[in-house]
Amino acid sequence: MLKRIHGWGVVIVIMTAFAVWAIGQTAPPAPNGIVMPAGWENWSAISVTSRTDNNTMRVILGNETAIKAARGGHANPWPDGAILAKVAWKTTQLEAWPAANVPGDFVQVEFMLKDAKKWPDTGGWGFARWKGKDFAPYGKDAQFAMECFGCHTPMKSSDYVFTRPPMFP
Amino acid sequence: MLKRIHGWGVVIVIMTAFAVWAIGQTAPPAPNGIVMPAGWENWSAISVTSRTDNNTMRVILGNETAIKAARGGHANPWPDGAILAKVAWKTTQLEAWPAANVPGDFVQVEFMLKDAKKWPDTGGWGFARWKGKDFAPYGKDAQFAMECFGCHTPMKSSDYVFTRPPMFP
Repeated sequence: MLKRIHGWGVVIVIMTAFAVWAIGQTAPPAPNGIVMPAGWENWSAISVTSRTDNNTMRVILGNETAIKAARGGHANPWPDGAILAKVAWKTTQLEAWPAANVPGDFVQVEFMLKDAKKWPDTGGWGFARWKGKDFAPYGKDAQFAMECFGCHTPMKSSDYVFTRPPMFP
Repeated sequence: MLKRIHGWGVVIVIMTAFAVWAIGQTAPPAPNGIVMPAGWENWSAISVTSRTDNNTMRVILGNETAIKAARGGHANPWPDGAILAKVAWKTTQLEAWPAANVPGDFVQVEFMLKDAKKWPDTGGWGFARWKGKDFAPYGKDAQFAMECFGCHTPMKSSDYVFTRPPMFP
């Protein structure tokens, strides 16, 4: 009897641990149905940017399709299947070297998913943003993407993407 | 006879193409013997930095050992086998958004390789730097690493590394 209870206890502990892990890993989908791409944290880098108007610094990552396009010079337009991820942190100064800007608090991670047929109203791009450490999806409903697209419209000549891939040897 | 010449011609073309490719891929070793780590271009990202004193912006990448240490909170000290790569570009402004800093010309790629036994004189780190698009090794002789180490010495409390891994979800 004790052995049987002990066995169930182990199962419950494992299931609970798995549930905690799964919740920690999975962000809710964006209001337009976009699910956070799996494994983006390990994607290769395309570029870096910083903004003095909102005091953030960012790294732009890409899935395999995006990396191949960026480094092969085929990123205007970006091919269907390309996904860009932009990770942003607050800009802070390194105490030991005040001329050095380094990341502070995590702000958000944003994605652009290229699929010309799926997202014809927003330049062929699906937009999604998750804010803060708890990955809160941005936007009240699917219309939030029009706000993203509005900001990206001045970049129409570079396929609505601000990032121009620099030389990445 | 013609067939035999044609056959040798094909071999020569293939060998020449391979030689051109190999030269293009391989940078000369650093003066302390460090060879540029293979495949670093596809390593995952750890952080970004920018410096206003020399007008550069950078992405810091890590090999698997470094990424595991950085994201697992085990990066002080960094484990033996960890390699950090810092890719630097000149900072420029995006015309369409002047408050945005974006990469201009490629400046250099630098590496720190942790091996406490191999590099006891420089905090357990091997240093290497390749400058410009032709990957010119930095330093006249192996003593160049003392210059690197001198600059990194103020960061002794963080294992001689300027980069403090930010939250990377």
